Amino acid sequence: MALIVQKFGGSSVADAAKIRNVANIITRTYDAGNDVVVVLSAQGDTTDDLIEKANEINPNGSKREMDVLLSTGEQISIALAAMCIEKMGYPVISLTGWQVGMETSSDYSRARIRKVEGSRIRKELDKHRIVLVAGFQGINRYGDITTLGRGGSDTTAVALAVALKADLCQIYTDVDGVYTADPRLVPTAKKLDAITYDEMLELASLGAQVLHNRSVELAKRYQIELEVLSSFTGNPGTIVKEVVKMEKTFISGVAQDKKIARVVLVGLEDVPGMAYRVFSLLAKAKINVDVILQSIGRNNTKDITFTIPEGSKDLCQQILEENQETLRYHSMNVSTDVAKVSIVGAGMAENTGIAAAMFEALYNNQINIHMISTSEIKVSVLIDKADSEKAMRAIHDKFFD
Amino acid sequence: MALIVQKFGGSSVADAAKIRNVANIITRTYDAGNDVVVVLSAQGDTTDDLIEKANEINPNGSKREMDVLLSTGEQISIALAAMCIEKMGYPVISLTGWQVGMETSSDYSRARIRKVEGSRIRKELDKHRIVLVAGFQGINRYGDITTLGRGGSDTTAVALAVALKADLCQIYTDVDGVYTADPRLVPTAKKLDAITYDEMLELASLGAQVLHNRSVELAKRYQIELEVLSSFTGNPGTIVKEVVKMEKTFISGVAQDKKIARVVLVGLEDVPGMAYRVFSLLAKAKINVDVILQSIGRNNTKDITFTIPEGSKDLCQQILEENQETLRYHSMNVSTDVAKVSIVGAGMAENTGIAAAMFEALYNNQINIHMISTSEIKVSVLIDKADSEKAMRAIHDKFFD
Repeated sequence: MALIVQKFGGSSVADAAKIRNVANIITRTYDAGNDVVVVLSAQGDTTDDLIEKANEINPNGSKREMDVLLSTGEQISIALAAMCIEKMGYPVISLTGWQVGMETSSDYSRARIRKVEGSRIRKELDKHRIVLVAGFQGINRYGDITTLGRGGSDTTAVALAVALKADLCQIYTDVDGVYTADPRLVPTAKKLDAITYDEMLELASLGAQVLHNRSVELAKRYQIELEVLSSFTGNPGTIVKEVVKMEKTFISGVAQDKKIARVVLVGLEDVPGMAYRVFSLLAKAKINVDVILQSIGRNNTKDITFTIPEGSKDLCQQILEENQETLRYHSMNVSTDVAKVSIVGAGMAENTGIAAAMFEALYNNQINIHMISTSEIKVSVLIDKADSEKAMRAIHDKFFD
Repeated sequence: MALIVQKFGGSSVADAAKIRNVANIITRTYDAGNDVVVVLSAQGDTTDDLIEKANEINPNGSKREMDVLLSTGEQISIALAAMCIEKMGYPVISLTGWQVGMETSSDYSRARIRKVEGSRIRKELDKHRIVLVAGFQGINRYGDITTLGRGGSDTTAVALAVALKADLCQIYTDVDGVYTADPRLVPTAKKLDAITYDEMLELASLGAQVLHNRSVELAKRYQIELEVLSSFTGNPGTIVKEVVKMEKTFISGVAQDKKIARVVLVGLEDVPGMAYRVFSLLAKAKINVDVILQSIGRNNTKDITFTIPEGSKDLCQQILEENQETLRYHSMNVSTDVAKVSIVGAGMAENTGIAAAMFEALYNNQINIHMISTSEIKVSVLIDKADSEKAMRAIHDKFFD
């Protein structure tokens, strides 16, 4: 007998039929002799509807009151799912964030979990009940309702798995698991049986948003085994854990990110501290800088090229223009006509030739590389946005065919 | 400076515009230098929508889970209203039932308030904040969410007024106050400036549902002054308190109840204990018996006539048929073609002639009286349903013109 935490997202509980489907999965897990704790998100569009109601009244309402408002969405889901499971004749109970002692920081709308008190859940499991917990929400030291922000329900599930020492944390979603590439773009993409925490983190940061990084980081820290799987197909999913038995390929996935902008500062004075000055200005404005490339200077000047999220483009440009005098660069060039394509794999470090094989695939398809960036388990290239899908398929076929 | 508890029902917070109207009333009360605690119901149809969602999944879901579900409605109202008041620049905070320590019995869906802990509200009032409280909900000794059932938010408001020793409890609704008769039926009906708790209780039980009896009983027990008033007109309402200065009329209202059935048991054996047997059977089935009339017997038999709520008719009939052998009555006659019309007034007891004046009004309009029932502050007559409105107007004109 194992203790299993399961999490179902908003699309998995969007209507009565989908809630019945989720109830079937939960009760099958219970019938197999497991203790089952389930985390649910708000139904489909509930959160958006509530935000719309709030905006109509006050688009700048306090985050505290937004959290009071939004936390009702998950509470509705757990009550409805509990009634569905009751109808099937199983013992079940629903619990809110404050009822399970999900203690968080006071940062309304993006609270961090501090501690899961958890005694109430244990008491209910001792009574052999299926326990449904409202995701995304907690309670701070003042007894006020908080919400966890993006990826909140995934994080709730992993935090409960940690607190209850669960054997497995299953994250149910609308895809079958983690793929070697986005199946909508690369028809030959294959589902991975397993992937390491680090690979998952790299893939998530590259735009393959199956799991939110916060939950993966938490699982990695406490070595909670995750499984990403579909609530619709019933197929086995992808296991995320510390060490994965090496398979014959050395990379676990190809991902792209098209929502980026490339900034080039031309003709910066070639003196020490120039890069520091540029990037500390951007850091102060909370602009995430990704790939950075600094050219070798000539005529006592050098160029710095870097990428940022597309949404930060205008702010970045404004900051750099305001500081042109102190930074003393000649000109600035900003383009959103680029994409980043990356390969990720824990086996990469011990294998030379992975990066070269990637470049070869791009060369064979006449795709020009603007920038290259590498880490222990990742190689990223910056290319023209128009080439992105072609590049994905070319690289994928090179490694997985 | 006074402490005022205000309660707004679901129709008063149905949409953004109505919430703004409510926020205006609240902030005006605050600007007048009062401490303000506000109880809100769920928006318009929210509760019905949630019940529909539940029914689609499980029409027999447990009451515990229904309470988890339904309590979200009031939570949404307080968050939205708080954001509206924030926008107007006032200090405000919303609190749920568990946050204000609204401790109740464990009877899910119809919990009784046991105690209001209240320290959180006092703390917020000390910070000069307007406090918005979710009505209708509480928490039981197990830390589970409960709801108070019908009239719940009125009861929440009065219970808070008791716990906080409020100077006044204002119940905002969609009518201007308590009238001498239903203004839709009796165009000459007048609004009362004041009415006693007992009169209000009698009127409510007679179908003039402005305030729920639970909240009036609680207010009477702790001598909390109530005011019933409209959230739309801004007119002064009706004060409900222990003693009301006698006005020139001795009755405070005329009410009717058309949802009743009359049952006649003909030819019961004229032996002791027969009435006891009949009514203990009905009590066991939780059928509320109202007016009872027992004829003088002849030929060693007697007839018993009584009224019950229309909805209990079939059950009552079934029970009496099943027991015809032991009760040994000759025949049973059940009719829903009747209505009860009543006058209520605390001044009635010291004034003879009130009942006679009522009967005179009916006689002058050729309305036949089937049964009569009187109490200290009430006279009720049973008449044909078709005569009900005519009787209301005739009686009203007799006393108030």
